[in-house]
Amino acid sequence: MTDSLPSLDAFRAALAAAPLADPQARDAAMARNGMLTKPPGALGRLEDLAIWYAGWRGDARPRLEAPQVVIFAGNHGVTAQGISAFPAEVTAQMVANFEAGGAAVNQLSQVAGAQMKIVALDLDRPTADFSTAPAMTEAELLAALNAGWQAVDPQADLLVTGEMGIGNTTSAAALAHALYGGAAANWAGRGTGLDPEGVAHKAEVVARAVALHAPKTGLEALRCLGGREVAAMAGAIARARALRIPVILDGFICCAAAACLAAEAPEALDHCVAGHVSAEGAHRALLEKLGKAPLLDLGLRLGEGSGAALAINILKAAVACHSGMATFAEAGVSED
Amino acid sequence: MTDSLPSLDAFRAALAAAPLADPQARDAAMARNGMLTKPPGALGRLEDLAIWYAGWRGDARPRLEAPQVVIFAGNHGVTAQGISAFPAEVTAQMVANFEAGGAAVNQLSQVAGAQMKIVALDLDRPTADFSTAPAMTEAELLAALNAGWQAVDPQADLLVTGEMGIGNTTSAAALAHALYGGAAANWAGRGTGLDPEGVAHKAEVVARAVALHAPKTGLEALRCLGGREVAAMAGAIARARALRIPVILDGFICCAAAACLAAEAPEALDHCVAGHVSAEGAHRALLEKLGKAPLLDLGLRLGEGSGAALAINILKAAVACHSGMATFAEAGVSED
Repeated sequence: MTDSLPSLDAFRAALAAAPLADPQARDAAMARNGMLTKPPGALGRLEDLAIWYAGWRGDARPRLEAPQVVIFAGNHGVTAQGISAFPAEVTAQMVANFEAGGAAVNQLSQVAGAQMKIVALDLDRPTADFSTAPAMTEAELLAALNAGWQAVDPQADLLVTGEMGIGNTTSAAALAHALYGGAAANWAGRGTGLDPEGVAHKAEVVARAVALHAPKTGLEALRCLGGREVAAMAGAIARARALRIPVILDGFICCAAAACLAAEAPEALDHCVAGHVSAEGAHRALLEKLGKAPLLDLGLRLGEGSGAALAINILKAAVACHSGMATFAEAGVSED
Repeated sequence: MTDSLPSLDAFRAALAAAPLADPQARDAAMARNGMLTKPPGALGRLEDLAIWYAGWRGDARPRLEAPQVVIFAGNHGVTAQGISAFPAEVTAQMVANFEAGGAAVNQLSQVAGAQMKIVALDLDRPTADFSTAPAMTEAELLAALNAGWQAVDPQADLLVTGEMGIGNTTSAAALAHALYGGAAANWAGRGTGLDPEGVAHKAEVVARAVALHAPKTGLEALRCLGGREVAAMAGAIARARALRIPVILDGFICCAAAACLAAEAPEALDHCVAGHVSAEGAHRALLEKLGKAPLLDLGLRLGEGSGAALAINILKAAVACHSGMATFAEAGVSED
């Protein structure tokens, strides 16, 4: 497998040729699940998660020991439109905070036993203001997709992608509006802390940008309305699929990136589960469009991969129960 | 502090004299929370959890490093009424499975980094069939409360209580019906896997038992309708309060035990959070009666402390963020 993609067409071809889960491993995991010392179905969603994970790993009794959290950071020209409560320099300041171990996602990765990688993407060169021009050229989009593609550790057995980028909930709202229609106001939320007037302005910027570009494909939406860190998340999620590494999706921005893949290839997110539903207004609606039920609903709205990182231990627990529990026969427990 | 209680009156006195959270530590934690490198409120419930935990531990920047999971097992005479899908000997078989490390809660405790203790309570001496007589004498109740009281490790910094006892969802339904009224049928659920006819029969047994005993206090309900493992959970939760060890409540049976304490002293559960809402029908209603919003909603219905053990890492993550993140000033990040 190549470690970078020569063109957007090659990226599309990789999505089209993406591997499927192993049906034999999945079936064997289902059979094992039925023999474990618990009433049938008593572990609820943990059982579905373990079987799903087993299928993607091609192992009926898998382990989950090497999760990876990758945080991509980028800057957005659309901040010129005054759509964020924080100034753009916070992106670089937070990258330094990630590198120093001081951010929420550092703590969450540590609790989850995950390796963490930070990829800052041309922070001194924001994307173009997408309310007046496409955010990226094709070459810039390809470079960002490849940054994500290359960031995935092939030895990882689970991937979380997070982001930092002042202005990127506006980018995500524009992507969702472009891909799924509806009213721009229904996709624009408070972000890091806008007041109602700020949200209304953000919705107006989103509506204008989507009307201007009217992208026809997921990758074209990503190019016109995305950001480098958004595209990099899409590239990483696609690479994880090629490597059959399951992914836990994070919040609104991560899911907007993922939605661009789903627009290109409907099955592109079959290796993904939704880690949480965030308090950013439109995330729940976006998860419904993706057909993903969140594992957690704790009111987080931080980004950074925080909600997905928090969900890693849920998936670890599911796999540990599945692979570590005794069967009725092994334990000498009566089945009924 | 005494390591066992000489009488039920002494137990009631311990509930009445239970310590409160430290308001200074809580306020200092709230102040710290406001300085951390994230938009205000962006960690959602994790922020509330960390502040709550800080108050109970009396430390504005606490650590959570020594969670304890205690599983109590008991047998129930009411199984003579045919109210469970599994035979009573499964209780002892599952205790052996816990001891051998083969059950779900073993795996979940390990993922959470929790020490696990198993306390089997007179398995060869089931409680009386409470549909015809009080489940326990006062001496038996006191012994079971003390078994829980003594099982708590004073060095633990978090407690989860779990249970195993064929028939105990019937006991829990009877406790909820006695404490909160309503229709018995609304408190009786499928347990480990009853069919609708079995559930209707179980509701009838519950209604009959509660009408027979009509207990007037939480402890009297526990004595007449509880079980040894149910009472032991109540004893452990009360002891944790005396030691200011926060508790994560598990499912329907654990919450029924806790409800007996709340009936004795309304503030008795202020040191508890609800780990999850289970798929056992009436658990959601019981949590509403207790005023507790669950952290997880993943369809578990296993007991054993499984849902609460799964939630340990959520609380660990909350505390890790709170105590480990940098402040805006430390990180040099612009606040707005």
